[in-house]
Amino acid sequence: MITFKNLCPDEPYLVLKQRYDNSIEAGQENIEAISISSFSNVTNEVNSRYVNLKFVDKNEFIFFSNYNSPKAKEFESHNQITALIFWNSINCQIRLKAIIKKTPKIFNKKYFKQRDKKKNALAISSNQSFEIESYENVKSNYNKSINNDDLTDCPDHWGGFSFIPYYFEFWQGSELRLNKREKYEFQKNEWKKSILQP
Amino acid sequence: MITFKNLCPDEPYLVLKQRYDNSIEAGQENIEAISISSFSNVTNEVNSRYVNLKFVDKNEFIFFSNYNSPKAKEFESHNQITALIFWNSINCQIRLKAIIKKTPKIFNKKYFKQRDKKKNALAISSNQSFEIESYENVKSNYNKSINNDDLTDCPDHWGGFSFIPYYFEFWQGSELRLNKREKYEFQKNEWKKSILQP
Repeated sequence: MITFKNLCPDEPYLVLKQRYDNSIEAGQENIEAISISSFSNVTNEVNSRYVNLKFVDKNEFIFFSNYNSPKAKEFESHNQITALIFWNSINCQIRLKAIIKKTPKIFNKKYFKQRDKKKNALAISSNQSFEIESYENVKSNYNKSINNDDLTDCPDHWGGFSFIPYYFEFWQGSELRLNKREKYEFQKNEWKKSILQP
Repeated sequence: MITFKNLCPDEPYLVLKQRYDNSIEAGQENIEAISISSFSNVTNEVNSRYVNLKFVDKNEFIFFSNYNSPKAKEFESHNQITALIFWNSINCQIRLKAIIKKTPKIFNKKYFKQRDKKKNALAISSNQSFEIESYENVKSNYNKSINNDDLTDCPDHWGGFSFIPYYFEFWQGSELRLNKREKYEFQKNEWKKSILQP
């Protein structure tokens, strides 16, 4: 599930919320799974992965990660990303383009404190995306953390990322591929809406 | 569904096929939906969208698109992409990195000829991702094509893209986020396998 708080009343946000509600009604699984695509100026590579979108707070989209992970390095190198959602229960793709940044440390600490302690042990013990000898070592590092660490103390290498889209596209699948596509672009302080060809 | 033909016998391809078979058994919906993420040197933007993966032919992954679309322009500008699959029925993410190129014209023409004529009318009539006055105009262009065009004649602006991955990562979700991650990188003419931390 995604938590919506004080949702921005602009049209694309309301359309997003409507589609979200429709997906919930349609029994959508993994509704919070969104892919975040990034680019690194260092490796000159595009990269992509699923994350769990936790909050849409006013106009900010927020998820959490390891700040030493490849994606964090990629966001530092090139701070523009594309987020992609596919809710197959209603045959709807949503594409967002945005600039991404870290959430404040105080916000991370507060969120970490009330988070599942077992998840926190993994956040503390895992050097995300780095190579390791074996999966057994992943588990033993985790167990050491469970037994020895303060599982309410947010480590410096863990926290949120937030992004505010400047582009929304709603793609609605239809028979014969006559798909409906509506985009919203934020230009000169307002949302410009257009219809795109399928 | 994805059609596998003369599948490359290298380990990552066999793992992919095994996960595909497991997903089919688990009743995976939209199994052919994969996201393709790209970068444009012109707009300096990352972009991403779902496509239908049609074939894995030996070691080549193939899907079809409009050659004048934004993604085609992005592939021209920067030919490295990331493809991302999420088969939620088995809680498995697969990430591929590759160089992308167009399929041969003769291949496109042959494939187009045996394709659903109604889909072809859309391929012929739609100026993919360009703005249009209304959705009614999309439908009227489509109907004109249905009535007037040779629906077996592949237009120059339509065809396949193919990519051969140099990187595979299999992410298997597990309890407590102790996810299993295995990557394969093609280096010095062989696949190097490693385990990644979750």
